[in-house]
Amino acid sequence: MRGTILYAPGDIRVEDRPDPVIKEPTDAIIRTVATCVCGSDLWPYRGIDEVAEPRAIGHEYVGIVEEIGSEVTGLRAGQFVVGGFYASDGTCPHCRAGFQFSCMNHAGFDGCQSAYIRIPQADGTLFATPEQPDDDLIPSLLALSDVMSTGWHAAVTSGVRPGSTVAVVGDGAVGLSAVLAARELGAARIIAMSRHASRQRIATEFGATDIVAERGDDGVTAVLELTEGIGADAVCEAVGTAESMTQAVRSVRPGGLVGVVGVPHDVELPVSQMFFRNVGIKGGPASVPQYLPELLDKVLQRGISPGRVFDLELPLEQAADAYAAMDERRAIKALLRP
Amino acid sequence: MRGTILYAPGDIRVEDRPDPVIKEPTDAIIRTVATCVCGSDLWPYRGIDEVAEPRAIGHEYVGIVEEIGSEVTGLRAGQFVVGGFYASDGTCPHCRAGFQFSCMNHAGFDGCQSAYIRIPQADGTLFATPEQPDDDLIPSLLALSDVMSTGWHAAVTSGVRPGSTVAVVGDGAVGLSAVLAARELGAARIIAMSRHASRQRIATEFGATDIVAERGDDGVTAVLELTEGIGADAVCEAVGTAESMTQAVRSVRPGGLVGVVGVPHDVELPVSQMFFRNVGIKGGPASVPQYLPELLDKVLQRGISPGRVFDLELPLEQAADAYAAMDERRAIKALLRP
Repeated sequence: MRGTILYAPGDIRVEDRPDPVIKEPTDAIIRTVATCVCGSDLWPYRGIDEVAEPRAIGHEYVGIVEEIGSEVTGLRAGQFVVGGFYASDGTCPHCRAGFQFSCMNHAGFDGCQSAYIRIPQADGTLFATPEQPDDDLIPSLLALSDVMSTGWHAAVTSGVRPGSTVAVVGDGAVGLSAVLAARELGAARIIAMSRHASRQRIATEFGATDIVAERGDDGVTAVLELTEGIGADAVCEAVGTAESMTQAVRSVRPGGLVGVVGVPHDVELPVSQMFFRNVGIKGGPASVPQYLPELLDKVLQRGISPGRVFDLELPLEQAADAYAAMDERRAIKALLRP
Repeated sequence: MRGTILYAPGDIRVEDRPDPVIKEPTDAIIRTVATCVCGSDLWPYRGIDEVAEPRAIGHEYVGIVEEIGSEVTGLRAGQFVVGGFYASDGTCPHCRAGFQFSCMNHAGFDGCQSAYIRIPQADGTLFATPEQPDDDLIPSLLALSDVMSTGWHAAVTSGVRPGSTVAVVGDGAVGLSAVLAARELGAARIIAMSRHASRQRIATEFGATDIVAERGDDGVTAVLELTEGIGADAVCEAVGTAESMTQAVRSVRPGGLVGVVGVPHDVELPVSQMFFRNVGIKGGPASVPQYLPELLDKVLQRGISPGRVFDLELPLEQAADAYAAMDERRAIKALLRP
């Protein structure tokens, strides 16, 4: 099959690779219908994360079940499936508590930017649609594999409720998805922190009521001004830098919670400041299987279009162009079709 | 009147001071029935917090209303009152949201270890009992002014629910109060981290089902062993050191929350570890007025006896002995009567 390999920073190639095969009786093999490039794929691409040796890359996908292992009971060949960016069994105590990333049978996987994918723990990881979806729904279904579920995780974790005022720090695909999630969870006011016109447009389309282009101290001041000095009821953080975390913590009202989904890079929190304002932080990798049933329904009923974050679509063979476009910020998020 | 002054580390004296007077129309003056020494009073006493000049000390109290300002409407002279360790108006957006420490008219006050106290924002700060309480209830009523409300804040903030498994880090008066709070909130299992026999006894009396004497790595291991490798559903942190915070964060299950009430001292959180386990922290100074109505009921109906944390009672004149006893860990908490 054809698959994408990251050879070194900046060096992405699509080449022939062995077809994946069932290794465990709980595996499934899917034929990829669509996959995409994640913001986190850019870290090794940019050399921020080390690339010790060439490796297959990608962790987002939708596809058709090709083959299932002997212990897979909930799926059959031919079904269209969406799955999370990690494997989880759905039955261990952590899965049952709704934190599937900590599954006792957790397996991470790379290499989803390819024509076929082996998915471990298929029964817990993959969710089938009732029928083959219309082709125009593919981008939105693909978004559920990571970014939309991750934005949803930020909004749920930060405690967004009907009527909430929410601020979202970060205008990448995840931040934009958090805006959409906040709207779906009933937020009355959604402040998107964004300085890029194309992203501001999608934020507004997703439900943002206010756009704040300032960052740092000025960004905090702007949120306070919009909220009569009180701060946002809930803040979603979708960047992960020290600056963005501090901005998030300072933008939330006393007693509020920052829902963090930006993977922290060298972050030291202002613990004392947080303490005296009763501000908390909580978050981490999204509980994708927890949210998929509800989000699948919303997409299939055309209630939400999280696929709007894809502003570039290319054949898988042009994966290198997709990486370059995202790296150079010419694209928010690139979809690839084998 | 007689009042306590901290002159320098280790130098506590009770001496004549001016009687407090109404300064603002929202003030009340109370005659102190009982007051006490807080763990946080020991920081300047030990020289950990600087003592720039002699100052009146103490922030916990119960008393009788002596006089009210012209704008106080909810209280009258002669009532027995309990109040929080800071003043809050009860009407601003932060008070209405239940985070009274961030009141827009917040006022801190020291000097409660004295015969009379001026309480700002009396309507929002003081709660009167329906009648004069029996004398044996005084310690438990006094505990509501800070430690019991603070322990309650830890338990509420960490998300203790009926059936929860809770771990409490810290066996001072606040940690013990968190054990009692967890029991009242319906926890099925309460693991108290304590290495002192006298504190273990009170923890057990307050509802602890398990005692763990180990700290650090060994303490975490012990909690994991007691919970089949899962971790506690909720953890209350009542110390505030880097070691205790890290222990708390590592003892909670994936997706769990640490309720922090130990004032952080030089704490740097293991942000990445927390992120990949979806573990959060939240907490701060307690929302005393939020909890007082319910806690007053429980004490007056003799449902809880948080005053058990007082294992030393002295006349106010012997405040210096009270400080020394707590400093030398001969007492958990010392009650003073003018």
